Amino acid sequence: MKYIVIGAVAGGMTAAMKIRRNDDKAEIVVYDKDTDISYSGCSLTYYISGVIENRKSIVPRDSQYFKKFNVDVKTAHEVLRVDTQNKKVIVRDLITGNIFEDGFDKLIIATGAHPVVPKIDGIELEGIFVLRNVKDADRIKMYINSYCPKKALIVGGGYIGLEMAEALKVLGMDVVIIEKQENILPNMDSDMARLVENYLEEKEITVKTSTSVLRFEGDKRVTTAILSDGSRLDVDFVLIAVGVRPSTQFLEGSGIQLLPNGAIKVDEYMRTNIEGIFAAGDCASVYFKLNGKTIYMPLGSTANKMGRIAGENATGGNLKFSGILATSIFKVFDLTVAQTGYTEKTAQQDGIEYEVGHITKPHITTAYPGAEKMTIKALAEVYSRKIIGAQIIGTKGVDKRIDVLATAIFAGLTADNLFQLDLGYAPPFSSAKDPIHYVGMVMSNFLDKRKFNCTQEKLLEKMQKGEDFIVLDVRTPEQYKIKHIKGAINIPLEMIYEKMSELSREKQIIVYCNSGVSSNIAQNILQQNGFRKVYNLSGGISNITLEELLEENNSDSFTSSP
Amino acid sequence: MKYIVIGAVAGGMTAAMKIRRNDDKAEIVVYDKDTDISYSGCSLTYYISGVIENRKSIVPRDSQYFKKFNVDVKTAHEVLRVDTQNKKVIVRDLITGNIFEDGFDKLIIATGAHPVVPKIDGIELEGIFVLRNVKDADRIKMYINSYCPKKALIVGGGYIGLEMAEALKVLGMDVVIIEKQENILPNMDSDMARLVENYLEEKEITVKTSTSVLRFEGDKRVTTAILSDGSRLDVDFVLIAVGVRPSTQFLEGSGIQLLPNGAIKVDEYMRTNIEGIFAAGDCASVYFKLNGKTIYMPLGSTANKMGRIAGENATGGNLKFSGILATSIFKVFDLTVAQTGYTEKTAQQDGIEYEVGHITKPHITTAYPGAEKMTIKALAEVYSRKIIGAQIIGTKGVDKRIDVLATAIFAGLTADNLFQLDLGYAPPFSSAKDPIHYVGMVMSNFLDKRKFNCTQEKLLEKMQKGEDFIVLDVRTPEQYKIKHIKGAINIPLEMIYEKMSELSREKQIIVYCNSGVSSNIAQNILQQNGFRKVYNLSGGISNITLEELLEENNSDSFTSSP
Repeated sequence: MKYIVIGAVAGGMTAAMKIRRNDDKAEIVVYDKDTDISYSGCSLTYYISGVIENRKSIVPRDSQYFKKFNVDVKTAHEVLRVDTQNKKVIVRDLITGNIFEDGFDKLIIATGAHPVVPKIDGIELEGIFVLRNVKDADRIKMYINSYCPKKALIVGGGYIGLEMAEALKVLGMDVVIIEKQENILPNMDSDMARLVENYLEEKEITVKTSTSVLRFEGDKRVTTAILSDGSRLDVDFVLIAVGVRPSTQFLEGSGIQLLPNGAIKVDEYMRTNIEGIFAAGDCASVYFKLNGKTIYMPLGSTANKMGRIAGENATGGNLKFSGILATSIFKVFDLTVAQTGYTEKTAQQDGIEYEVGHITKPHITTAYPGAEKMTIKALAEVYSRKIIGAQIIGTKGVDKRIDVLATAIFAGLTADNLFQLDLGYAPPFSSAKDPIHYVGMVMSNFLDKRKFNCTQEKLLEKMQKGEDFIVLDVRTPEQYKIKHIKGAINIPLEMIYEKMSELSREKQIIVYCNSGVSSNIAQNILQQNGFRKVYNLSGGISNITLEELLEENNSDSFTSSP
Repeated sequence: MKYIVIGAVAGGMTAAMKIRRNDDKAEIVVYDKDTDISYSGCSLTYYISGVIENRKSIVPRDSQYFKKFNVDVKTAHEVLRVDTQNKKVIVRDLITGNIFEDGFDKLIIATGAHPVVPKIDGIELEGIFVLRNVKDADRIKMYINSYCPKKALIVGGGYIGLEMAEALKVLGMDVVIIEKQENILPNMDSDMARLVENYLEEKEITVKTSTSVLRFEGDKRVTTAILSDGSRLDVDFVLIAVGVRPSTQFLEGSGIQLLPNGAIKVDEYMRTNIEGIFAAGDCASVYFKLNGKTIYMPLGSTANKMGRIAGENATGGNLKFSGILATSIFKVFDLTVAQTGYTEKTAQQDGIEYEVGHITKPHITTAYPGAEKMTIKALAEVYSRKIIGAQIIGTKGVDKRIDVLATAIFAGLTADNLFQLDLGYAPPFSSAKDPIHYVGMVMSNFLDKRKFNCTQEKLLEKMQKGEDFIVLDVRTPEQYKIKHIKGAINIPLEMIYEKMSELSREKQIIVYCNSGVSSNIAQNILQQNGFRKVYNLSGGISNITLEELLEENNSDSFTSSP
């Protein structure tokens, strides 16, 4: 049996090695137009920043390595065309220029993706880069070493843009990020994305949202970016990081079915529409486990799974992909940003009725040194009570909680189940009640309608509509004085029994504190004393990112609020 | 409604606060004979070592704090008896000596547990301690400050013993741990426990297993421990950490049903056999989720859950406990040791047919600096393919993997599911294929009987029985020379095709490498070339802890093996 694999990175080499493990007699040929193979694409930003010093550690294997397993990896060989009828590929040897044909019994396409480069004036100037493969990283490193750029522009506020913002800042540049959408990290909900924007600004990274580049200017090297807001930005380094497109142009006319964006359409077994032809990794579609819809979401972790499944099934197996939860994680400076499953945005698109909560808790018990708070935004479906999504921002222990939640969502666990999880507890690692347990307790309360919850977006809407309601701040007068929600009245928690008679039982009350714990208690007390429409402000004032909700006071002449 | 809670630590205060949240009008009285309440029992070893500097941070709340919530916590009040017929408790005020009665509608018993103190000569000498509450820790700290002890003996190799071993070592003492059982950490399997023993010895902690204390000697303060192996040990500090017993003596004759060890028998709703009386925390029984059996396993994380459930149900709720997985985790020096679900030992007791595997993988991608290996021992049930247990030892990222596995086991996920989990991947946090994914792949292979696996215990048994089989080392000759399994022959992986004809196809072959990756490949090659009885040595030679299996060579005059 002759197997051809096109592409020698995550999906391709995983498939090739799985074929070898399953079939010792197989003939396996892998073509890749690059000369670096089997590299860690997700490590490139760390190679540029110098955190990863050694090029070899991100490209640990070469063709020679795979020879040991009798897998013939031909680098600098571009597959020009696939002849699905005659089961052969047409290949150009990029060194000699020779073009030849090679027949296969089974074909696995794993050509990955390439960066989108917007067609704007000046895009071809020196100093403007994309980052996708090791040679891109080499080019960037060489340019930085040669010209010591000082003013960097990153076009695109996704996670590659943000990782690079850190790398370039560490290398001594001023960094501006521009993002076309209203917020960076368009895959997250905007309230969470804004927390990251605020953090970046603390780190002296300039973030401009709802902004794009009109053109670049410069003589030979880029010197200026003209932005859609009319401003001119001095720049001597530009990274374009506005997404990727599947590298499947060579398949046009092959009969292999592609999605509108060019991704190869595969089923759960990594089969294309053509018998004997499989696809895996960033060139192919995946499906979102929670709604079964075919989407394009290229990620290294998924590529590895797809490669193994393609290899298994190409050798006669029957391994079915369970689909993705769109789990992602990245680090920017000390902040970890992670998400899994539905966001509010995507849940609304699917018409799902959900409850949402914001839980801010330390990653370990506060008795132990080094405890750091994280904010978890969780979604639970009203009908099934299942946890369907989570977004987490924090400095420590975020990776653990997103993986536990991804596992819980995969398994279809409910909010009620989360509280019951028997997680490992010792002071260096967690709290007796882990943030995960709090997510369970809080979401169960919301689902039971024991508790009503109000997001900052809903609060703003109510204000803008001019609804008649009470906003109640239960923190100390000192905290209230520094910053509070517009129009809020202040009754510290310990005075709530004494002063509740001043509140109208007829009106909606939106109660808040710093992160939601004291306001939760106040909400309880009010509810049990006949106040029936009491809402807790999700995440408290510390997670408010809509500036228009806040009234801040830095002067001494502050006078008490209504 | 009048609620009495006995015990003001994890289970008790969680119950009291849950009652308050559910019933604003409830009268709640909490009795505790101690004056420290609501403390973090799991932090005590860190308070002794000085990692946690401030006593206040492990006892952050006092009676005053709970007054705010109208919860009346009476410290230094010992409940002497419960009169279940007349619904009242008989209480002694430990300050005044007054004895009084107090009636209840609902009672929650959360009196915790106390250390077992063996009845041996000299146990009452100064310098011999137990560690359970904050006053125990105060006493230990004061003694260490006053007498600067140099030679510590820890009786009991459980996790408190090990955490204290680190604390005392850090404080400058020589430390000996003795354990009555064959291995320390009797709740783990012995192969994993031995890895910890080896590590402790690297840290210059002496570990004596299968050993107990016959008596202590000394004038006023302890100076000598006489051990069961006949040795006399000079000691000036002794910690007794041989387990705890439920603090329920005061319930004898009350009619409340107790287990033989004294634990209060509760159902999934934390109800005792007496209407209106609940129990929670270390004084009560729990049940093991995987077999439904009632057991005694006191843990802080469980106590918190039980307290909340008791509080909820005492106020008319219907919250059912899902049971425990016996998940535990602790740190000793840089090592993290964790487990969840079944061990081989407990699976065998329950007659479960399981597959077992040892997976050694780095906690993050090796390209990124700081990657550290961990060893995961996983169990999967043959019939259901479910993951039923895991034990992990490593220096980093262990807490994440044990929590993901605990979640997976809770949810009933199979080995096949584990490979499919969409976990978060970025180089600072994990690998594209996480250790969890490898657990899934390896265990699926074992369950499919695509791969046969052999533990070191089985290998030793085969050797001792004199069975005729081949042990094959596929590492380099240099590695082989330093250390190998007794009687092993050495064929490096790259020579396997060339030399396989030298091996008998009739005999069982047990193949190994360092941690199982190369031997897995060799196993594949051999299987596909007609060798049908090829076993992989689980975890490789790096996880071998049975010394009698090894042949080590430190001399230069080494000659080649068979």
